[in-house]
Amino acid sequence: MAKKKDKVEGTDDGGGRAEGTTAVTTAAPFTDALRVGEGFVLAGVDPRSTPAFDGDKEAGKAALAAADEELDHLQEQLFAMSRAGGSRRVLLVIQGMDTSGKGGIMRHVVGSVDPQGVELTAFKQPTAEERRHPFLWRIRRALPGPGMIGVFDRSHYEDVLVVRVHDLVPPAQWKRRYGTINTFEKGLVEDDVTLVKVMLHISPDEQKARLQERLDRPDKHWKYNPGDLDERARWDDYQEAYQALLERCSPEHAPWYVVPADRKWYARLAVQQLLLEHLRGLDLRWPAADFDVEGEKERLTGL
Amino acid sequence: MAKKKDKVEGTDDGGGRAEGTTAVTTAAPFTDALRVGEGFVLAGVDPRSTPAFDGDKEAGKAALAAADEELDHLQEQLFAMSRAGGSRRVLLVIQGMDTSGKGGIMRHVVGSVDPQGVELTAFKQPTAEERRHPFLWRIRRALPGPGMIGVFDRSHYEDVLVVRVHDLVPPAQWKRRYGTINTFEKGLVEDDVTLVKVMLHISPDEQKARLQERLDRPDKHWKYNPGDLDERARWDDYQEAYQALLERCSPEHAPWYVVPADRKWYARLAVQQLLLEHLRGLDLRWPAADFDVEGEKERLTGL
Repeated sequence: MAKKKDKVEGTDDGGGRAEGTTAVTTAAPFTDALRVGEGFVLAGVDPRSTPAFDGDKEAGKAALAAADEELDHLQEQLFAMSRAGGSRRVLLVIQGMDTSGKGGIMRHVVGSVDPQGVELTAFKQPTAEERRHPFLWRIRRALPGPGMIGVFDRSHYEDVLVVRVHDLVPPAQWKRRYGTINTFEKGLVEDDVTLVKVMLHISPDEQKARLQERLDRPDKHWKYNPGDLDERARWDDYQEAYQALLERCSPEHAPWYVVPADRKWYARLAVQQLLLEHLRGLDLRWPAADFDVEGEKERLTGL
Repeated sequence: MAKKKDKVEGTDDGGGRAEGTTAVTTAAPFTDALRVGEGFVLAGVDPRSTPAFDGDKEAGKAALAAADEELDHLQEQLFAMSRAGGSRRVLLVIQGMDTSGKGGIMRHVVGSVDPQGVELTAFKQPTAEERRHPFLWRIRRALPGPGMIGVFDRSHYEDVLVVRVHDLVPPAQWKRRYGTINTFEKGLVEDDVTLVKVMLHISPDEQKARLQERLDRPDKHWKYNPGDLDERARWDDYQEAYQALLERCSPEHAPWYVVPADRKWYARLAVQQLLLEHLRGLDLRWPAADFDVEGEKERLTGL
């Protein structure tokens, strides 16, 4: 595929950022603080910590709201550039244990973006048709088009999580998948996809409290599934499976980010900021008109 | 298909409406004021009027924001009921001339709803594959699943609009489509789809001002298409085509609503309220748990 990302002639509007923020594109504090690197140990991350942010809940909520405008602006530029032939797109992957807050991210972070620029896919247990295909088949069909922000609520990583924990395929098969995934994601990056892979990291105590709430409130019963407790009983196996994928699928071009998620407000802020920092890195701008602006103005006057 | 809509056992939470509003489900002022009925004449609707609302812009924006919570609540109940076997779903169809504000509706009204409960489809010029199929083929593929709010940005009505105005098929063919559409939509309604069909109605002067703005602002050039002026030149033909479809495709179970759209704030409020009024009419509630709540509480304590 032709790479057009640098071929879109642009207008430097000088306003790529919301007023009041500093235009330092190299500073990416959340990206730096949350990236999985050499020697990463999941068990060493405190789910109640708030890396790269030293404010409290109130300050966190204010920071989230304050960044909406810039996120909106950058998303619109990403979309606009695709109309002028740009091929850049973003894929946000969200993984986490049950009750880790995936739905809240969808609602409060993804939900703040113009729905015309978002393609959200929630991956459930594979259907019969999906099971007849290689595990990446349904993933490829859900990839975002140029200019779009794709969002995966669960993803191909379930194929080395639930599948591994429950022995749904022989070990030799899931073990091969780490390499398959790395090759697949390398292809995505070469195809102008910016990957932002996020694991929401909660503690077992926090999960217990959240499940308890779903049981206590009749308006939350529909979110509860007795199977959730069976999964909870395998907590350590899941943590081990997460540790393996974080370690094995974090190459420099597509690392994982582990977001402490016991505090919902922090997790939402962190995912928003990760998205924002990645968008800032894309050198987005308004595409130049591909028509005769003055000529069109004249035509319009007569109509 | 089995009708399960009345079979979902529910919990009356007594909180179906945001605080401060009155729980009178029969009052649907926007639905009543904007519905296309017998003898409707599009040319008689003032695009600057604000039916069912006597406040100004500021009051309109406040009313829009104030209804977010209830919309959120009802959408979540619609979604929850589908998890318990409910088959209800909603389809919001948005049509209108270029610059009539379809994008703003998507951004500000649809965008206020949890993205997990929305399926948005923007219909462009049919692709080569789509043209090889009957005109409703791509529409059927985009219908919302149970519990979802589907949103169509343009729709099957383009097949009696642009197709009619530009003679893209012989007259005998597009003339048959009004009946085909009525039959199709009747089937949808029988299949538990609540249809909300909205035409955004602007004046030619307002369109001129909005096109002018797109030409004047470099950050809006990407939204401008010289073809828009060719369409503008056929304004009267389009109004005639709209009049025909409004008249011919407004049966009692799936009428059109014409929303005056010269004032963006009013159009957004009106579409939101139409959606809300239709959701209120669905008798939504939280589904009862289909598991042993006390038993699960005990299991959780031990884990």
